[in-house]
Amino acid sequence: MFHKVAVLGVGLIGGSFALALKERNLCREIAGSGRSEENLRRAKDRGIIDSFSTDPGEACLDADLIMLSTPPGSFIDTIRKSAGGFKKGAIVTDAGSVKGDLVYDLERMMPGGVSYIGSHPIAGSESSGIDSASAGLFQGAKCIVTPTADSDREALMKINRLWKALGANVIEMDPRKHDHIYGLVSHLPHLIAYNMVNTVASIDSSYLDFSGQGFRDMTRIAGSHEELWRDICMLNRKNLIEMIGVFQGNLDTLKEHLAASDAASLAAELGRARRLREGIGQG
Amino acid sequence: MFHKVAVLGVGLIGGSFALALKERNLCREIAGSGRSEENLRRAKDRGIIDSFSTDPGEACLDADLIMLSTPPGSFIDTIRKSAGGFKKGAIVTDAGSVKGDLVYDLERMMPGGVSYIGSHPIAGSESSGIDSASAGLFQGAKCIVTPTADSDREALMKINRLWKALGANVIEMDPRKHDHIYGLVSHLPHLIAYNMVNTVASIDSSYLDFSGQGFRDMTRIAGSHEELWRDICMLNRKNLIEMIGVFQGNLDTLKEHLAASDAASLAAELGRARRLREGIGQG
Repeated sequence: MFHKVAVLGVGLIGGSFALALKERNLCREIAGSGRSEENLRRAKDRGIIDSFSTDPGEACLDADLIMLSTPPGSFIDTIRKSAGGFKKGAIVTDAGSVKGDLVYDLERMMPGGVSYIGSHPIAGSESSGIDSASAGLFQGAKCIVTPTADSDREALMKINRLWKALGANVIEMDPRKHDHIYGLVSHLPHLIAYNMVNTVASIDSSYLDFSGQGFRDMTRIAGSHEELWRDICMLNRKNLIEMIGVFQGNLDTLKEHLAASDAASLAAELGRARRLREGIGQG
Repeated sequence: MFHKVAVLGVGLIGGSFALALKERNLCREIAGSGRSEENLRRAKDRGIIDSFSTDPGEACLDADLIMLSTPPGSFIDTIRKSAGGFKKGAIVTDAGSVKGDLVYDLERMMPGGVSYIGSHPIAGSESSGIDSASAGLFQGAKCIVTPTADSDREALMKINRLWKALGANVIEMDPRKHDHIYGLVSHLPHLIAYNMVNTVASIDSSYLDFSGQGFRDMTRIAGSHEELWRDICMLNRKNLIEMIGVFQGNLDTLKEHLAASDAASLAAELGRARRLREGIGQG
């Protein structure tokens, strides 16, 4: 499918992407790039990548597929530094959790003859790094692909085929619609989970010793790397500011029911959430 | 250890308590009580209880241990209706997630010669009902026992011994301290999880179809029964109103960092939460 693939950011997602390509013989060669030479060396020793450079431009030379799998706040800078050497006909994609304006910005930065197609595989977890990477990470997962009106149709079809070959269920979606949806069901829940842990600490962090399974489940995603989630939340901040407002308004309603000792109204709110939650399964 | 035990409320906790007592031969006979005759009959058919009555007073006749394992909003009414028939020397305990004033209220309602000792086994989950009951539920779990200055020392020792016999790690704690701690690490997280689901619904409930593992983990406890959590939150509402205020204040801080595009301050908040979260383990 590809001759040389460049994976910029060899962590959980980039490493799993490389392993999945290799397992399915979808390319001949994979070059990795990243900030940590030690990490890249480990990835090469384990056969996840074939060569590496801490200079993304060098890793991208002669590549016909370039995968951006660093935190999305670095995409623009990475492209700025390396796009000069991109091969004509190359396709650039990414695995970022945020799309929206970033997709249009990246699209505009591509040199002539190079296409950008955004993608967001819904995979990964609070664990990170190549030690957690696996060839099966995308099997059965949703992968949102976010073409624009200007996207090259052939490159789009190739990216769709690629994700399907890796076992993902591809869904095409407008980049801004993507950010509205994932802002609500992923980015906001992360902020809320981080905020829950910090709220315990604001009152008495020693209380964390008394937390049970419910608290641990509820805050598991607060174990996610702050560098990644800082980038995602900053890039989707307009949606998030609005959604935090809705969340706080709903919380005001619960607070009012408590203050008024209105047990029936409180139960109605909790019951509504329970039924919706049961509708999506235990997962 | 006991002759006859009355379990008022034969669900996940009451049913598991009965099974655990039987497995360890800690009593000769268990009577169950509850609203649903069908549920009580099923519990009897499965050998979880030996007899039942929908009248709690009848189930408590001649019992030397009475376990309140209904939602805690019903404790006062149950005791009011049944205390007249309590045997002299009987001990009343409960498995409620809320203590505080309720402990003092229940203590005052006990007839002469009957002792009340509050307990809160940290067990159970969003699943409920006797189908989920198991004799091992309390094995390795914390059990908070909440004596007051007026608690009968012998009854307290017996309740402590009982929970230890069921495999629990007993921690004695002031009833109001209990509610401050569990308000923060359990009751508030439940309200927040319910509120997260309702916030998605406020914006677009069809987005729930796009939720991934993180959202499912984060909102698992929003699948908990609203009747139970209505009671818990209402009984601990003073703490919760204050804690919601702290939560919202922290959320305001995150919102301000987003509005100011202050990535470094946002990352600092997220990083603080991540380190605290990692400190309590993945569980």
